[in-house]
Amino acid sequence: MDKEMNLIEQKAVFMAASNKLELCEKVLLGIPFDATTSFRPGTRLAPYRIREVSEGIEEYSLYQDKSLETLDFYDAGDIVLPFGNVNECLRRIEDVCKWFLNRGKKVFSIGGEHLVSWPLIKSYHEYYPDLVVVQLDAHADLREEYLGETLSHAAVMRRVVELLGENRLFQLGIRSCTRDELSYAEKNTQLYVDVLMNVIDEVKKKIQTRPVYFTLDVDVIDPAYAPGTGTPEAGGFSSREVLKLMQEMKSLNVVGFDVVEISPPYDTADITAILGAKIIREALLAY
Amino acid sequence: MDKEMNLIEQKAVFMAASNKLELCEKVLLGIPFDATTSFRPGTRLAPYRIREVSEGIEEYSLYQDKSLETLDFYDAGDIVLPFGNVNECLRRIEDVCKWFLNRGKKVFSIGGEHLVSWPLIKSYHEYYPDLVVVQLDAHADLREEYLGETLSHAAVMRRVVELLGENRLFQLGIRSCTRDELSYAEKNTQLYVDVLMNVIDEVKKKIQTRPVYFTLDVDVIDPAYAPGTGTPEAGGFSSREVLKLMQEMKSLNVVGFDVVEISPPYDTADITAILGAKIIREALLAY
Amino acid sequence: MDKEMNLIEQKAVFMAASNKLELCEKVLLGIPFDATTSFRPGTRLAPYRIREVSEGIEEYSLYQDKSLETLDFYDAGDIVLPFGNVNECLRRIEDVCKWFLNRGKKVFSIGGEHLVSWPLIKSYHEYYPDLVVVQLDAHADLREEYLGETLSHAAVMRRVVELLGENRLFQLGIRSCTRDELSYAEKNTQLYVDVLMNVIDEVKKKIQTRPVYFTLDVDVIDPAYAPGTGTPEAGGFSSREVLKLMQEMKSLNVVGFDVVEISPPYDTADITAILGAKIIREALLAY
Amino acid sequence: MDKEMNLIEQKAVFMAASNKLELCEKVLLGIPFDATTSFRPGTRLAPYRIREVSEGIEEYSLYQDKSLETLDFYDAGDIVLPFGNVNECLRRIEDVCKWFLNRGKKVFSIGGEHLVSWPLIKSYHEYYPDLVVVQLDAHADLREEYLGETLSHAAVMRRVVELLGENRLFQLGIRSCTRDELSYAEKNTQLYVDVLMNVIDEVKKKIQTRPVYFTLDVDVIDPAYAPGTGTPEAGGFSSREVLKLMQEMKSLNVVGFDVVEISPPYDTADITAILGAKIIREALLAY
Amino acid sequence: MDKEMNLIEQKAVFMAASNKLELCEKVLLGIPFDATTSFRPGTRLAPYRIREVSEGIEEYSLYQDKSLETLDFYDAGDIVLPFGNVNECLRRIEDVCKWFLNRGKKVFSIGGEHLVSWPLIKSYHEYYPDLVVVQLDAHADLREEYLGETLSHAAVMRRVVELLGENRLFQLGIRSCTRDELSYAEKNTQLYVDVLMNVIDEVKKKIQTRPVYFTLDVDVIDPAYAPGTGTPEAGGFSSREVLKLMQEMKSLNVVGFDVVEISPPYDTADITAILGAKIIREALLAY
Amino acid sequence: MDKEMNLIEQKAVFMAASNKLELCEKVLLGIPFDATTSFRPGTRLAPYRIREVSEGIEEYSLYQDKSLETLDFYDAGDIVLPFGNVNECLRRIEDVCKWFLNRGKKVFSIGGEHLVSWPLIKSYHEYYPDLVVVQLDAHADLREEYLGETLSHAAVMRRVVELLGENRLFQLGIRSCTRDELSYAEKNTQLYVDVLMNVIDEVKKKIQTRPVYFTLDVDVIDPAYAPGTGTPEAGGFSSREVLKLMQEMKSLNVVGFDVVEISPPYDTADITAILGAKIIREALLAY
Repeated sequence: MDKEMNLIEQKAVFMAASNKLELCEKVLLGIPFDATTSFRPGTRLAPYRIREVSEGIEEYSLYQDKSLETLDFYDAGDIVLPFGNVNECLRRIEDVCKWFLNRGKKVFSIGGEHLVSWPLIKSYHEYYPDLVVVQLDAHADLREEYLGETLSHAAVMRRVVELLGENRLFQLGIRSCTRDELSYAEKNTQLYVDVLMNVIDEVKKKIQTRPVYFTLDVDVIDPAYAPGTGTPEAGGFSSREVLKLMQEMKSLNVVGFDVVEISPPYDTADITAILGAKIIREALLAY
Repeated sequence: MDKEMNLIEQKAVFMAASNKLELCEKVLLGIPFDATTSFRPGTRLAPYRIREVSEGIEEYSLYQDKSLETLDFYDAGDIVLPFGNVNECLRRIEDVCKWFLNRGKKVFSIGGEHLVSWPLIKSYHEYYPDLVVVQLDAHADLREEYLGETLSHAAVMRRVVELLGENRLFQLGIRSCTRDELSYAEKNTQLYVDVLMNVIDEVKKKIQTRPVYFTLDVDVIDPAYAPGTGTPEAGGFSSREVLKLMQEMKSLNVVGFDVVEISPPYDTADITAILGAKIIREALLAY
Repeated sequence: MDKEMNLIEQKAVFMAASNKLELCEKVLLGIPFDATTSFRPGTRLAPYRIREVSEGIEEYSLYQDKSLETLDFYDAGDIVLPFGNVNECLRRIEDVCKWFLNRGKKVFSIGGEHLVSWPLIKSYHEYYPDLVVVQLDAHADLREEYLGETLSHAAVMRRVVELLGENRLFQLGIRSCTRDELSYAEKNTQLYVDVLMNVIDEVKKKIQTRPVYFTLDVDVIDPAYAPGTGTPEAGGFSSREVLKLMQEMKSLNVVGFDVVEISPPYDTADITAILGAKIIREALLAY
Repeated sequence: MDKEMNLIEQKAVFMAASNKLELCEKVLLGIPFDATTSFRPGTRLAPYRIREVSEGIEEYSLYQDKSLETLDFYDAGDIVLPFGNVNECLRRIEDVCKWFLNRGKKVFSIGGEHLVSWPLIKSYHEYYPDLVVVQLDAHADLREEYLGETLSHAAVMRRVVELLGENRLFQLGIRSCTRDELSYAEKNTQLYVDVLMNVIDEVKKKIQTRPVYFTLDVDVIDPAYAPGTGTPEAGGFSSREVLKLMQEMKSLNVVGFDVVEISPPYDTADITAILGAKIIREALLAY
Repeated sequence: MDKEMNLIEQKAVFMAASNKLELCEKVLLGIPFDATTSFRPGTRLAPYRIREVSEGIEEYSLYQDKSLETLDFYDAGDIVLPFGNVNECLRRIEDVCKWFLNRGKKVFSIGGEHLVSWPLIKSYHEYYPDLVVVQLDAHADLREEYLGETLSHAAVMRRVVELLGENRLFQLGIRSCTRDELSYAEKNTQLYVDVLMNVIDEVKKKIQTRPVYFTLDVDVIDPAYAPGTGTPEAGGFSSREVLKLMQEMKSLNVVGFDVVEISPPYDTADITAILGAKIIREALLAY
Repeated sequence: MDKEMNLIEQKAVFMAASNKLELCEKVLLGIPFDATTSFRPGTRLAPYRIREVSEGIEEYSLYQDKSLETLDFYDAGDIVLPFGNVNECLRRIEDVCKWFLNRGKKVFSIGGEHLVSWPLIKSYHEYYPDLVVVQLDAHADLREEYLGETLSHAAVMRRVVELLGENRLFQLGIRSCTRDELSYAEKNTQLYVDVLMNVIDEVKKKIQTRPVYFTLDVDVIDPAYAPGTGTPEAGGFSSREVLKLMQEMKSLNVVGFDVVEISPPYDTADITAILGAKIIREALLAY
């Protein structure tokens, strides 16, 4: 067994997942990491809880007329992470992601905080040099550093821009940042303030056929729909709008996907976890 | 006293209810039944809790310019149900409902899970052979059977179709089902996928003056507005839209009404129960 | 030290507040009063909790391109209130408000229940004889008395009308009242039933340059977005709509502001408190 | 109908209660009052919630080998209280209590906050001039005044002492007070610091056959067992010890009883309300 | 594969479980059944949640100086149950249990409500004709029938007595029942009222070497320690006392074990689920 | 201003704290650090929440007949910590602690997770070479490393032993560890398994007059009393027992104190935070 496989443990399974990796192109991967969360931690508990509640929704998507029952996807379990050592955590995420990419898999990740997208996108970028990133988020996450750290959930997209270069990051739904982040975005990213559906056609036109990594921070959705998150930002979008946007993006060439920042300790009646399970189902079926 | 009256007990009262059955055409009836709930039980607690929180809203409806204070309606209390014996439970619901119909009453029921609509609609169908049913719901509830049972919350509307015949069931707001249910619906029901207000005029035109049984599964409303439910389905409608739809339906000949699937254990700050009390007030005043 | 200063204590601080009163035109004031709350008390806990969670949002507003970091505002702490003595409580609120007005300050208050607006508006009216009031609220609060009391959260706006005279009160978003309140409103206030954005231009035209006291009862927002409130009223507006309305009102001459009826015991994951902190940030930056 | 009866409304019923007042010596009375609560309000919701959850316990007490099914007791409902007018509230409580005493009834009250004991004890004292009071409580409640008010939950037992005279108040389980309260107690009451069972024999010997009003503040029990209370005080007693103490007190001549300070908004899984229902069952059967 | 294996599905795994059934004598089995629960349902969710939180405790028991890491036990997953069909559910539980007993396994079950013990004990009784049952419980569960049903959580131990015969059931910790149940117990069982440790030596002397089925209803523990249960009964024992009792019972010949009535919807901070995981660890290591 | 003072920010204040550092020997310090928490994070929120709820208890201790009102202690606020950089966090804690020790202060710290005790004890050890540590805890925290990290909450007391040398660490209340930790403890520490009061005299005799650093992990208390903690361990002690033990330790020469592992997101009705406030009051008055 490859050593990367020792970095993963499987404690629970998403509904309808296959247990034959070799048959599956799509892989579901839990990343229970929240070490740089600054306000309210807890996203590490999302992968397990989302798997638990997945049984509360159908395998079949009425939006897409497709079902997980006829899709071969593998639930790889969660990466084992040494809390307190951020660098080692990020290295493991990158190693595991590359291991799957090396085998021709497409990785669908469940965070964890937003910093987990950094090693994932790094891995993807090696395979797709012309990768663009579509980010749905309430926050720009473009800080130079946060509380002294350059590797932070609040700085993750700045790192991504430094890696990919200018105008390769499309930021939708943003309704909170600092003045400095906004200035940086004006020069380096495609940031759309407080809009979602209105600009998706424009975004698609700009991206065209380039490979897309799609990262969905659940706080782009209003806390009413997704209370279970670390840094809720009022004035957001409905889950309905985001589910529709996900359909719109089917025509893009999405090669990787993650949903991050779901935080079960702050959830109510598991509605955020159940929404997360639905988002994952839609992503698995769509991309 | 009729034996049916022994099947009911009155432990709490909805605001402004009369205690004189003989003066009232409209009857409020609690049905604390959740025996076939598959994911997360608890709807049995709804009738009591909804009565408690009813004091938090006004008797007067600004939408309708009418008040419960000037409406004679009777709160009959809850049906006493032997948990674990589904058939006996359904029989009792049917007996009690018929007893009221025999006396010229119109029954407004509070579930309980959606299966309670089955004995209610059966009773109504005896009195109104040309009955049609309008269902607001996130789920189609059209399974042939569920976990081996034909009498299940997930199969309740299939049973209704078998009873009423083709095209007598109007399903609005549906956003989740299996492929089989969808196929069945295409042949046997009027199922509208993921829409509500846009189709109400069409629905009203099709129904015309026929008697309508209106069943409102609270999960048609998004979990943001109604977290207290057993099987929340993200991507739903706002409570505002549903309250408006209820106004639109005033011009129909609604002869029976139920609101089901409110589950207090999963509620937050009683907002679903309070919404339920408002839905009941609007229904009592409107139909 | 003035005796009014003995009526205030400072136990926690809103993010980015200055500690130099003399440098600040704008003053933040907590009023932990909920003595006449009839349904579910708890709003007294809002000022402290809102300050705690304020660190979860940015100082910078992307909507306004302004930041609290460059705004001089003073957090005065909370008024100390003798629970059980409503009249003394109201007197203290009035005294403290006047003390600040005497020093040329603009007061931004955090309730507490809606009755706190009464002594605040009384104070403001002395300084601004042509004061008009804009009220965002689910309830009209226009009762002659409530449970025998004329000074009640449910009667507060009736008292305001009696003070200011006819047509000086603009009520938006109202979706609940009694028939008597509606009749009173038809003669004495500008009450807009169940609408918000559609009428703001009309309202602004009517108000013109007159000084405005803006009171925002958080229950104008739907309980989905603001579950932490004493008397949630389903069928409301989104926090997004209210934040936009706040921007629209920048062109008015807002001289005083309060946000009331946030109730932490009924909140979930602090989303109402965090929304409250954002509303306060926007108000401080806008008015 | 006597005017006192207009001060009461019956919205829910305790398990096994009779509906014939004339047959019953014992009367259950809800007093949803929390106007002077200083820390966290909510006890007003206790009477209704305790009735709801009473169905979760047996009518039969294994401790006493007696059952509510064979006891005639009447559930009078709740007193209607004008929030915000403390004096009027207290007057109504006193009027209602006297009305029952005039008819030879024994009153078992459910608070509300501890101040409700004041009008109750005043009424009892008129009928029993040699009345003594046994108080189970974490707090001494002996302040001269609290936040400027002499009628406050924190001062209620000081008022009682002033009414009854020296050494007529027995305070058990006390583990929190001010230095001044302790000094006052040393002169005027029988205060037992942080003990319960150890002193009950001594207390009984001192009281002998005198009539006893027994007031049980639920916070004498540790917050682990009774989290649903306004001012939880760690380091308390178990519910087991308190239930045993209640048995010990059967040999006293208990003529009146109340349980106060249960606060549903702070409860978890209704365990405090269910404990309250059990305490009431035991009191009804024992005294 | 045997058809019984189709009745089981494995969605999550208890910490340190082996995945080789053939190597393991001890088998952990989830039974998510709560169909006859009368007060507050939800125990069906316990098996999954307990597995999730098991990672929060150590594999090693300091009480026993043994570790799950060196114990071969198999986590069989959960029985798939058709909600709403009690008889079929019970049949499946019995079939699966017998299948394991036929293979020489010892079954450790996680409920579910207490009725699950009925098919389990029936299976065991076939293998151990002189089986005795030790029941830790707040409630006697000895009703003839409950709400018309003879197969009910409230009647389960009556059925057991009818199966095993007189004086084969030892009931400890009982503090709630009806008068009829007590009378029945006096003739047919060994019921110890409201005691635990004091009588364990006596119980052990009576049982001697006979095979013991040990059923632990979590509500024997006070709701303070185990709030997550359907019918909390105040005045119970501490988890510490129950863990000690479990050690005392190591000298008995325990051949089967279940822990029932843990209800995650009513849990707080998962403390009941975590206690459940610890109870299971201790049972696996001890018996 | 010293640079260490830039590492602290004061957002809220403990009841009755002085604002004059120079007058105070005792200093209260919040350390909102939970970066190595492995199971459920959230302790970082404790310092703020404990200050908020401190107003719910008295300044006066009936146990000690002393009051915070007559004690000069300074609330220094919280250390500002860069999440994600464990080493820098620990360095800051050490720097701030030493800064206070240099000025003759005694530091009372509020965690945060248990790893915060490591830099605190390191600082103290420089000043008190013969320092001994008394640890109240459910867990031994003696791992060589945890998930690859030597600086972890699960290894903190191993580091302390390596610093202080053999038999300088007294561990009370321990009921959970690994076999390796137990072996290590047998050689290097004074570990008392599952006992508290019974051994305090022995511990005091061994320590005599040596300076004591007292670290109280709140999980030594049973989760019933302290549900708000990251790794609850059933079968613990009551808060009453721990408060009594704190009194017993007054005769020791306690030179430093911390209370750690209180986690507000998992608290219920703030009972753990309120217990924490009481523990701090008792410590400030006693040591």
